[in-house]
Amino acid sequence: METSVKNLSIEKVKTSRLSEIDFDNLSFGSVFADHMLICEYVDGAWQSPKIVPYQPLSLEPSAKVFHYGQAIFEGMKAYKDSEGGVWLFRPQENQKRLNISAKRLAMPELPEEVFMDGLRTLLQLDEKWIPQAAGSSLYVRPFMFASGTGFHASPADSYTFIIACAPSGAYFSGKVSVLIEEKYSRAANGGVGYAKAGGNYAGQFYPTQLAVDKGYQQVIWTDDVSHEYIEEAGAMNVFVRIGDTLITSPVSDRILDGVTRKSILTLAEDLGIPTEVRKISVHELVEAAKEGSLKELFGAGTAAVISPIASFGYKGKDYELPELEDSYAHKLKKMITDIQYNRAEDKFGWRYSVL
Amino acid sequence: METSVKNLSIEKVKTSRLSEIDFDNLSFGSVFADHMLICEYVDGAWQSPKIVPYQPLSLEPSAKVFHYGQAIFEGMKAYKDSEGGVWLFRPQENQKRLNISAKRLAMPELPEEVFMDGLRTLLQLDEKWIPQAAGSSLYVRPFMFASGTGFHASPADSYTFIIACAPSGAYFSGKVSVLIEEKYSRAANGGVGYAKAGGNYAGQFYPTQLAVDKGYQQVIWTDDVSHEYIEEAGAMNVFVRIGDTLITSPVSDRILDGVTRKSILTLAEDLGIPTEVRKISVHELVEAAKEGSLKELFGAGTAAVISPIASFGYKGKDYELPELEDSYAHKLKKMITDIQYNRAEDKFGWRYSVL
Ligand SMILES: Cc1ncc(COP(=O)(O)O)c(C=O)c1O
Ligand SMILES: Cc1ncc(COP(=O)(O)O)c(C=O)c1O
Repeated sequence: METSVKNLSIEKVKTSRLSEIDFDNLSFGSVFADHMLICEYVDGAWQSPKIVPYQPLSLEPSAKVFHYGQAIFEGMKAYKDSEGGVWLFRPQENQKRLNISAKRLAMPELPEEVFMDGLRTLLQLDEKWIPQAAGSSLYVRPFMFASGTGFHASPADSYTFIIACAPSGAYFSGKVSVLIEEKYSRAANGGVGYAKAGGNYAGQFYPTQLAVDKGYQQVIWTDDVSHEYIEEAGAMNVFVRIGDTLITSPVSDRILDGVTRKSILTLAEDLGIPTEVRKISVHELVEAAKEGSLKELFGAGTAAVISPIASFGYKGKDYELPELEDSYAHKLKKMITDIQYNRAEDKFGWRYSVL
Repeated sequence: METSVKNLSIEKVKTSRLSEIDFDNLSFGSVFADHMLICEYVDGAWQSPKIVPYQPLSLEPSAKVFHYGQAIFEGMKAYKDSEGGVWLFRPQENQKRLNISAKRLAMPELPEEVFMDGLRTLLQLDEKWIPQAAGSSLYVRPFMFASGTGFHASPADSYTFIIACAPSGAYFSGKVSVLIEEKYSRAANGGVGYAKAGGNYAGQFYPTQLAVDKGYQQVIWTDDVSHEYIEEAGAMNVFVRIGDTLITSPVSDRILDGVTRKSILTLAEDLGIPTEVRKISVHELVEAAKEGSLKELFGAGTAAVISPIASFGYKGKDYELPELEDSYAHKLKKMITDIQYNRAEDKFGWRYSVL
């Protein structure tokens, strides 16, 4: 096992838990692979990363992660092809985005090689945890949080970075119906919406629960002022097809710059699909639904891949999307997963070989 | 020691750390009392609370607090009077607000008696940790976070509630100068700004650091759309005195409903000071500063008590506040701390006897 991170130490599990896992019935992110990578930031410097058995962490009750929300994360997947080859999809994008999030939350940036080499070494070690079944993958969760202590509301002086992995099945089960939000919001102008900051997710749970109680699976967030423009979904960017044009909102300081979103845009352009990156009003969506030009609505993200949306609710009315034979969602999902699972040519150089 | 919480168990420290603490040189929130209260929410129910030695916590790396920011807190102080009596200030307000925060973050509400009786019992036990020196107190930190695990972005199934205490000196040292924020913001309309959610604080650190680099101590947040209206400071509500009128912004879903703020309003009204609760524009502030009618600016919060602001910066200019002999800030600070430390009559029934 080669690694270029100096001093990356490896302590292997005595007994693997692999045989305890039912790989035919994987839910999303609820069982964890044998090992994790851990790297501590103390006294102004990142210490040597270690790979150790996945195990509980010991933290002071005054660790700032419990009080002031200094917590960021990333989400990726490791894919196994039919030959047993292991691949990541554009992992450098996640590495860069982690540091964008870190900066916004006044946390230290992580050196690229700790992320990339640590990730590769960890996946090589836990290679057997990567499921091969269609639609399954090893969900990879890099995250960083404030381990430094104190009740003063100011940045911590020490941090912990971890990569943990979970063999996972599909994120959504069944058809997805969404509610367009009219009251609550996810992000402020000038806020942290573009960062993968823990607090962005906690704030979504209650409004999402209200939507679930009404029979929807997800909320589509709108701007926090007029609630007239659609922004993104809980853990997905949103695409709309009106006529033959594929439209998605521009990213901003309120919207996460999704890796799936930008890959979809590139693939669509490559297919010759007309694309537009511009604001989408709820009014436009409703009008298009009424006159029949609204053909598709789908979410795009690492966890959910491409999730076609079957219907959306707005101001007490539900609007059904047609079921298309040859949908963009279907076509684009096939293209992107074929690249991810090494079943197609990698024209854009997105695949990253792990093993 | 009497308590009405059933099954509150107490495990005392073998050796107190009290003698290690330099009570004459206390900073804010950096040393912790011998004991803490801990109560776990599992399988849909709060378990029996326990008082145990202050000690590290063991958590799974997949605990949702590290990923999705389900973390809320409260801040109170325990005061010791000259006779050794121990007091809290309106603790029921904090108890209620904790549950308001819990609801917004899809966390379980904590029964009132666990909070109140647990708090009282803990303070009685760690009574010697409450400093008696002027300006010192025992800072009390109730907090709750998601201990349940999983990488699915949804509420956790288990939670931990803790009360930990820190003997503390002043929150700010020296004069406070603030920067009125023009770019970043703290809270969205329809967001979680009114909750004491961890994520609200992490999001403030980077903009505050930028302000500190320019020579200020604090940011005064403005609305996220126009940045024309002042809202609150990092951990304080803000009061403005123009002429003889004391003005503060109305609370909203973006602004924390501070206990100090509402107490100050009551005390000011009681003193016959004209008060107004209304939006305050930066324009009004700057104009009043220019024409000399801006008499005072101060922050109000449990940690910082009342912090007079010496100057504010806006669009590259600094505006100095006059130094008044008989300021409202001084008068109100004396009134509120006299009540808190049991040096004056408690006309409004705010004091809560602990011991
Ligand atoms: C808020 C939010 N939007 C969009 C996405 C999609 O981003 P990506 O495609 O990089 O996974 C995610 C998930 O990562 C997310 O959390
Ligand atoms: C954001 C914010 N605003 C205002 C306050 C003041 O509230 P209180 O007076 O209840 O301490 C605090 C501190 O608790 C705070 O964190």
